[in-house]
Amino acid sequence: MSTDMTSHTLDLLPDSSTSFLSPYLPPSPHADRVFVTLTYAASLDSRIALGHGQRTQLSGSESKCMTHYLRAHHDGILVGVNTFLADNPGLNCRYSIAGKSPVEASPRPIIVDPTFRCKIEASSKSMMLAASMEGKEPWILVSAEWHTSASPSDFEHIQSIERMGARVIPIIGLQSGNKNESWAAILKSLKELGIRSLMVEGGARVINDLLCTAVDDINGNKVSLVDVVIITIAPVYLGKNGVEVSPASALDNLYDITWAQFGRDCVMASFNKKLRAVF
Amino acid sequence: MSTDMTSHTLDLLPDSSTSFLSPYLPPSPHADRVFVTLTYAASLDSRIALGHGQRTQLSGSESKCMTHYLRAHHDGILVGVNTFLADNPGLNCRYSIAGKSPVEASPRPIIVDPTFRCKIEASSKSMMLAASMEGKEPWILVSAEWHTSASPSDFEHIQSIERMGARVIPIIGLQSGNKNESWAAILKSLKELGIRSLMVEGGARVINDLLCTAVDDINGNKVSLVDVVIITIAPVYLGKNGVEVSPASALDNLYDITWAQFGRDCVMASFNKKLRAVF
Repeated sequence: MSTDMTSHTLDLLPDSSTSFLSPYLPPSPHADRVFVTLTYAASLDSRIALGHGQRTQLSGSESKCMTHYLRAHHDGILVGVNTFLADNPGLNCRYSIAGKSPVEASPRPIIVDPTFRCKIEASSKSMMLAASMEGKEPWILVSAEWHTSASPSDFEHIQSIERMGARVIPIIGLQSGNKNESWAAILKSLKELGIRSLMVEGGARVINDLLCTAVDDINGNKVSLVDVVIITIAPVYLGKNGVEVSPASALDNLYDITWAQFGRDCVMASFNKKLRAVF
Repeated sequence: MSTDMTSHTLDLLPDSSTSFLSPYLPPSPHADRVFVTLTYAASLDSRIALGHGQRTQLSGSESKCMTHYLRAHHDGILVGVNTFLADNPGLNCRYSIAGKSPVEASPRPIIVDPTFRCKIEASSKSMMLAASMEGKEPWILVSAEWHTSASPSDFEHIQSIERMGARVIPIIGLQSGNKNESWAAILKSLKELGIRSLMVEGGARVINDLLCTAVDDINGNKVSLVDVVIITIAPVYLGKNGVEVSPASALDNLYDITWAQFGRDCVMASFNKKLRAVF
């Protein structure tokens, strides 16, 4: 059904690359919490796209393969609605995992979309991949406020995509004006829905917000929600008008940092905080 | 005379690090041109400082050592006046080179300062290091326009620092409003002054300008003035208010790219263009 590159199986990573990534993968069996891996590809000047709404291919084939290998190790893959609208992403896993079908290897696509702007339909790439058994049907996280006041035509739209296996999930606390509260609500809901490992792929706003988000742990200490950060850096400049990753404040949270070259690119893998049970 | 860290000799690099850098060092014997190495240390979000005028230590000890090793292999080291004013940099080489004194191993500090704002004096770190035989006396590149209209007190200042071995050098074409022309004038003058390899260390404006600068080669083709780019990336975020490296336009000029981990940091070394005789 899908005819573009998203249906091709990727090459396998060499053992050196899987060894490099191994310490940073979500724990298995999963703990009773959501393990969050923040991952993105940026230019040397920390831009992820040439401009808003412009899909920009940064990763080379080796680091793209690495990303799909990571996808195979997570229950869910989350993007913001702007990335969904700009890129129409597939969000499936094209890395071949022994004993698993493409659907089984693929994470659940999760779109954070408080006011249901995504207008996802059968022809959206993630829906087509699900229909052709190459990925899972997406979940769209909307705010409970939007959901309670949705119009009849909105509900018709929701019903039509839910008949195809997608889900539109109202989240209490999403878009509350408080980023910490929104992200806490998202992870709490995803945990209840069975997601124990989440790969956050973008876009810039989601990354910048999540890097700075901190919530109280069970001891009342502020902790980040991000467990692992994996960044691909491509050796190009996208220039000052590009869409940039740079959090609102300075951060020096990363530890146990390893870098490895993938083709022309470099990948940094690191932990972001001591693992603590928050959700 | 100098009592801080700048007078300490650094550890030697392991062979793996010198092998990594070796292909990117200026050719020896030097060709009849100025070989330009652009080098800087940035955060993951491509910031080189927390804010304007705030000296920010990004490099770990291993990558700092790498920077001093590079300094030993260049005739000159260039910074802009804003970096000089913000950092009061030593600009000497603290890497021990067999058979060379610290003065011999050190590059010539070169400050691009069209209107002589640096007000360099005997207590400036680079002057103190020269006085204690740990570095060379700096050269300050001013515009010819400024020099011809300098006040008597300016000339007294110039004479006082020139008696200590520094030089204030008027450059025709500097600050012409045309960046290409300014940089071409700088490199032409430095070549005449015997500089055959130049390490450009910052700050952000110098880096952003130089990355985009292109001049006509002998065949009339536009070429970059930068031969090699070496970037240290530190695994921290300095945040959106930091001083950023991001050129005015997108660039994909780098080739033969190698990455190597130095402590927590990663260093990218690459060529920026085919070598052509321009100056």
